[in-house]
Order: sequence, then C-alpha cells, then structure tokens
Amino acid sequence: MVNRSFVRWINQLSPVQLIFVFYFIAVILSTALLAMPAAHREGIDPPFIDIVFTAVSALSVTGLSTVTIAETYSTVGITMLAVILQLGGVGVMAVGTFIWVIIGKKIGIRERRLIVADQNQTTFAGIVRLVKEILLVIMVIELIGFLILGTYFLQYFPTAAEAYFQGFFGAISATTNGGFDITGQSLILFKDDYFVQFINMLLIIFGAIGYPVLIELKAFLFSRGDDGKAFRFTLFTKVTTLTFLALILVGTLIIMLLDVADFFADKSWHEVLFYALFQSVTTRSGGLSTMDVSQLTEPNHLFMSALMFIGASPSSAGGGIRTTTFALVMLFIFSYARGKGEVRLFNREIYGDDLMKAVTVTLMAVIFVLTATIIVSIAEPFDVTQILFEVTSAFGTVGLSLGITGDLTTFSKIVLMCLMFIGRVGILTFLFIFKNNKKSGKYRYPKEKIIIG
Amino acid sequence: MVNRSFVRWINQLSPVQLIFVFYFIAVILSTALLAMPAAHREGIDPPFIDIVFTAVSALSVTGLSTVTIAETYSTVGITMLAVILQLGGVGVMAVGTFIWVIIGKKIGIRERRLIVADQNQTTFAGIVRLVKEILLVIMVIELIGFLILGTYFLQYFPTAAEAYFQGFFGAISATTNGGFDITGQSLILFKDDYFVQFINMLLIIFGAIGYPVLIELKAFLFSRGDDGKAFRFTLFTKVTTLTFLALILVGTLIIMLLDVADFFADKSWHEVLFYALFQSVTTRSGGLSTMDVSQLTEPNHLFMSALMFIGASPSSAGGGIRTTTFALVMLFIFSYARGKGEVRLFNREIYGDDLMKAVTVTLMAVIFVLTATIIVSIAEPFDVTQILFEVTSAFGTVGLSLGITGDLTTFSKIVLMCLMFIGRVGILTFLFIFKNNKKSGKYRYPKEKIIIG
Ligand SMILES: [K+]
Ligand SMILES: [K+]
Repeated sequence: MVNRSFVRWINQLSPVQLIFVFYFIAVILSTALLAMPAAHREGIDPPFIDIVFTAVSALSVTGLSTVTIAETYSTVGITMLAVILQLGGVGVMAVGTFIWVIIGKKIGIRERRLIVADQNQTTFAGIVRLVKEILLVIMVIELIGFLILGTYFLQYFPTAAEAYFQGFFGAISATTNGGFDITGQSLILFKDDYFVQFINMLLIIFGAIGYPVLIELKAFLFSRGDDGKAFRFTLFTKVTTLTFLALILVGTLIIMLLDVADFFADKSWHEVLFYALFQSVTTRSGGLSTMDVSQLTEPNHLFMSALMFIGASPSSAGGGIRTTTFALVMLFIFSYARGKGEVRLFNREIYGDDLMKAVTVTLMAVIFVLTATIIVSIAEPFDVTQILFEVTSAFGTVGLSLGITGDLTTFSKIVLMCLMFIGRVGILTFLFIFKNNKKSGKYRYPKEKIIIG
Repeated sequence: MVNRSFVRWINQLSPVQLIFVFYFIAVILSTALLAMPAAHREGIDPPFIDIVFTAVSALSVTGLSTVTIAETYSTVGITMLAVILQLGGVGVMAVGTFIWVIIGKKIGIRERRLIVADQNQTTFAGIVRLVKEILLVIMVIELIGFLILGTYFLQYFPTAAEAYFQGFFGAISATTNGGFDITGQSLILFKDDYFVQFINMLLIIFGAIGYPVLIELKAFLFSRGDDGKAFRFTLFTKVTTLTFLALILVGTLIIMLLDVADFFADKSWHEVLFYALFQSVTTRSGGLSTMDVSQLTEPNHLFMSALMFIGASPSSAGGGIRTTTFALVMLFIFSYARGKGEVRLFNREIYGDDLMKAVTVTLMAVIFVLTATIIVSIAEPFDVTQILFEVTSAFGTVGLSLGITGDLTTFSKIVLMCLMFIGRVGILTFLFIFKNNKKSGKYRYPKEKIIIG
C-alpha cells in the first residue's frame, strides 16, 4: 500500500517534522475538498481564507468558524466536514498518544529523539496501529451517540433522514470535540432538552478525557476478577481524570456565581444548573453551547478564558495546556511554597523532569496567548476580553466565541490558525521544532548564583 | 536603645514574619501620621480607607493614589509622605538585599530558614547595618537630585522655598521610585523640559536598578587599578543591568510603534522619543509620568501592563517579578526548546535551582495578577484593560494609572493594597509565609511518569 521510498523519506523525519508534514498535507487536501463548488450551497462562494480557516479549525477540532456552516456548506460539504473532523479528532489523539508511548518508556528528553531515530520502523508501524485502535474506540462511541441522538431527533425534525443526518453530524461533532454545528445556532435549539444536553456532555467528555484513560477504563471493566488481582489505574489516569472532573465541578460553580445576579437572575434552579454545567463541560474543549455565551458577564468571560486555556486531557481530542499540566503546576507551586523538595500524590512521587515540563509548557502558553491577544488587539476594534476569549478558545481548540470570528481581519484569522495548530499538537511538541540537533558540549562553565524575585 | 526582650521576641521570628511585623507597624504608624488633621489641607477630611491606601502605597513606594495628593495633604502632610516614602524605599531595598545576602551564601532553600534561626544576632544586626548603608547611598543620590532640581525649578516657581520644596519632594519621589507628585499632574508640567525629564529618569533608574548594582558600581569606580587586577562584575549585576537596559530600549521602541498612528501622529521626533523613553523608564517602577497615559492606545496599555508586570531589579526600590526572573525564564524557555540541559551566559552556568525559582515566581505572579484582575472586574464597571493596568501597576509597585484609582470600591482598594504588599516584598518572600516548618519525611514514594502538554 505505502510506497517504500515514501516510507524511507518519512522515516528520516523527526516525529515533529512528521506531524508537520501530515498536518500540512491534511490542510491542503481539506481545503481542496471544501473549496469544491459541490461543497457549497447554491449561489454561495465563500472567500478562500474562510475555507482555509474552516479546514484548519476542523482538523484541529476547534470549531471556530468565520462563516455559518449551515448557510455556507451543502449536504456534501457538511459530510466532508464530518470526515475532516473525524480525521482531526483521531489525528490529535494519535499524536498525543504517540508522545505518551514515547514518554511511557521513561526516558529523558534528550535521549527520546535518538530512540525515535533508531526505531523508525516500529514507530511508523506503531502510529498506524494506534490510529486504527483509536479510530475503533471513537467510532464505537460515535455510533452509539448517533443512534441515540438520531432516533431522539425524530421528534424535532420533519423527516427521518434529516433527524439522522443531524444525529450523525452531532455525534461526530461532540465526540471529536469538533464543536461545529449545522443547526446554525449550536445547541441553543435544545436549551430546554436536558436529555440532548446530557448525551452531548457525555460524548464531549469521552472525546476530551484522553485516549489512555478510555483504554484503561476498558481494561478495568473487562479484566476485573480475571486473575484475582485488583486492577490498578496508572498515576496518569488518576491525575488527569480527577483534574478533569474537578475542573468541570469548580467551573460549573464559579460560572453560576459570576452570573447569579445577571444572566441567571430570572432562571429556575435546573436551568441555571444545566446552563452552567454544559458551559463548564464545553470549555474543556467541546465548543458546542446551549446559549449565546456573549450574554454572560465580562468576569465570566475572563474565567471561561482561563478554563479554555487549561483545556482537555493529554492524548485526547482537546487542546490547551492540558489537565495534567495544570495539576502539576498547582501541586508544584504549593509544595514549593511549603518548602518541600518533591511532589507526591496517590502514594507516588512526581519526576522533577515532569514538573519542569509542566511549568515550561504553562509559561510558554501564557506568553503565546498574551502576545497573540496584544497582536490581534492592534488589528481589531474589539474589546480585549472578546479577543482574549477568541484567542484562548483557539489555543484550547474549544471553539466558543463571543461572536467576533466572522468580522476578524485576515491577519487575525492567520494568528488564530497558528494558535489552533499549536493548541492541537501541544506546546511541548511545538517547542521541539526549535530543538537544537547538536549535542550539548561536554565542557561546563562554573556555576554562579543569581537573585530571583 | 532597643529593649532586650523586644530583641529576643524579634529574634524568635522567621525573616518573613519579621518583615510582616515591621510592615504592619509601619502601616499603622504611617496611617496615624497621615490621619492627623495637621496633615490635611484646610477643610479636607479624606475617608479612612483612602488614608490607609496612601500609607500602603507610600510604604510600598507604588504611588497609586485614590486622592490628589496636592489637593488633600498640607505641607506638613506632604513632608510626612516624603519621610514615609524614604522609609518605604529603603525598606524595600533592605529586604531585597537581606534576601540577597542569604542567597549569596549559596545554600539550598531548605537550609536557609535554619541558618537564619541560628544566626539571629548577626542577622538582626546585619539588617540594621544594611539599612544604614542603603540609606546613605540613597540619600547621597537624593541630595544631588534635590540640589539640581530645586535650583533648576527656580525658573518655574514664584518663590525659592516653593522651588526647593518641589525639588525636595520630586527628588525623593523619583529616587525611591515612589511616584507620588505634588504638582497635581505628575510631570506633565515638564513635558517639554527634557532636562527635568532626564534628571528624573536618572533618579528613577538609580532607585530601580538595584542596591547590589550600585555597590558594585561604586567598587568598580573606586577600586580600579588599586591592585592591578581587573574588577569583575558579578553575574547577577551583568544579567540584571543588561535586562534592565534592554527592557528600557525595547520598551521605548514598542511604545513608539504601538502609538505611531495615534498619540504620536502629530508629534515631532524628539517629542515622540522623550514621551516613549520616559514612559518606558517609568514602567520599570518609577510611576511618574510626562503624559496622561490613558491617551495611548489599548494595545499600548496591554504592553505597558506587561512591562510593569516584569518591574524592576531585585533588591531595588521597585516591584514586579523582577528583571532577573524575567531574564532567567526567557533563557530557560529558549534553552529548553532547543533541547539543552543547562542555561549559560557570560561564561557561567545558571543553577537549576535558580531557574526553578524564576519559573515559580513568574507562574505565581501570573496567577495572582489574573485572579486579581478577574476579582476586581466583578466589583468594577471599568474595562478589563483598565483593571489589568491598575493591577499590574500595583504588583509592579509602579503607580501608573488610567485614571480609575479614585473611583474604585473599598473592596478593590483592599485587593490593590495586597498586591502592592506582595509586589513590594516579592513573590518568593511572600511564598515562604506558607512554608511548612516540618522537615520533609525521610521515606520516599516510588516515582511515576506523567504526560505533560
Ligand atoms: K472544539
Ligand atoms: K512607584
């Protein structure tokens, strides 16, 4: 199937270069597909930059869009978009998992590159196997989501075809955390239908909680009692899942509080609960929404920007700095402030190298997001909060917007595309692009102390 | 002079507790002084919270003020304010230098506290000696500044007394980086007088560049050629001074560019240069201003917020995360991205422990500043940019404002006072408040890898 010289060319690339090559091929192909006249509605001819933006947004499963999907793309175009989302969702997971596998070997940063260079055959084959496995897990979840949503939608739409088409796109958009909608107004149509919201939250969580967690969950469910030994979840699964759920709960609570006297003032308790819960879940990376989030107060927009900045779990369909990074940074700061040398949790000690990685990722992300916000605010007349919201939404590959995406200049669209890419592959992977191939010299300089803060 | 049981009580406190005790005594005394009727102008009775705010602002040499100093305080009050500024400026330097001395012993974080506990006599005596030394250096600079400014001001003010009083307060406010003004409009009066601006910039830089740098500079100037050996500046002095000057230059350039089509559009080249240069210098921590900074564009406000967040050099009269912290974080990120294990500069290698400190300080500062911005924006109707500017100005103990300080709620004033205190003592010192006194246990947990970003 795959040409041998192509394999050889692929093999000589570093993992990061590989990701770049795949990503750019995917952007070109997706743009070509979405640019075909058959992909557009009658009489609609979207500008090229908007088609590229849709392609990048779909491949990074962000869901930000400069056009209204339902009004721009035909059924053919929407089906293509679903396929691109699927590719993007699995791609993100595969890349993340690939990194996870390499890190799983417990090898330092500097050796990792060499090992990949040595084991290229296994690596390339390994990626293909992983992609297949992830695709299977995702598609099973999507299929169940599609059947439930499609059947349930029969009461909403005039024909069964339309109901199941909505269910098909909805399940893919939620599970891959794509966040696109073909209703023209996200899930606002279902703002009083808690069943649809519940299914969507479940699908979003499956997509955002991380592939390794799903695999361990599968192993836990099917291996219990087999050999008498209790199944032990890895530290990673415990940390990421706990952080993920804690963020959803704390997020729900604070979103409620920040709008208790405003948007939520005239709502019943269950409306408030579901509005806050859904909007909290969706900031993990989903991007679908049951309301026009611009109706919330400005402090809530800032808080949601922080949630989107954190994003989803590693090796999931989501972006941002990732839940584990956030957890480790918090643990590190607290243990540092209390004068402790090491970070412990669940009877395990965290590697200093991992803590270092976490703080580096977070700092880089802060610098990227703030720089992007300042740059975009030079080009745009919008409020800084609106721009920060858009920028963190892109970086977290979330796709929520306060409604300015369509009015942005081409320059700002390009900045957002870059952020979606960085958010997709992750800061750490992105950083390795600048990695120096030369080995660090053997000689060392004398050390000298410096005053900090 | 000092009561023996008081000394014993002082001796049993940790350095951080000592700083707290001194600071709170100073706040109470300063508030009492500024609350006396003789300190106010005829018929003026400022609210208590505003007096406390002035006291905290003066002690942290920030310069933010909820009232117009010239319209609120009498000549007696202004003289008291000058004394408080002097106390604050020297206090900040002494605290910073005290930490520098401890770190200078090249001892790990965990041992530091114990050593202080063991050597209390020397430590307490050491602080007193240091304060005297710093006071001397500052007062010599101030005296020269006072003579130059006072004499030069003869052309501006009707009486010699008024000219020299303006020179007296101006020299203290600039050198301590206090940033208060008794002209009622900062240095806007001198917007076309480049000589006054130049002297003020020089005084601000002397106050913000750090006491160890001044001492080394003195040693360099007076020791050259004495023993035939070339004087060698410490790595700390090289890093902090280079970063300090680079920030001023880059800051000037970007402030120019961000307003080239707006505020600077109708100005001559030398006006643009001096406006941008002075505003860049003042964000290091000065707080005096030659213009109403709210006239600049919003991107410029964001950029200046970033500059104020970085702040001045350690062991200076300024605040923020400090220049060295910023430099180390930047060096660390670049070297990490390039896959290098260590950070080198000026033929020296930086301790990993120092890098860790720098990233921790920066992350904590980001969390503090963003949390404060969100909290204040809940209580206030102002733009997020205005609030962020005010918050970073407090944290960097800069004192620039877009004009909202006077209209803030008591709640927000308290938040700003906390930030001024944290900015004053520095994040690292502040963190040690939460330090666990118990020694870390001898047993260790097994380590386990975690996926980051
Ligand atoms: K999304
Ligand atoms: K100041």
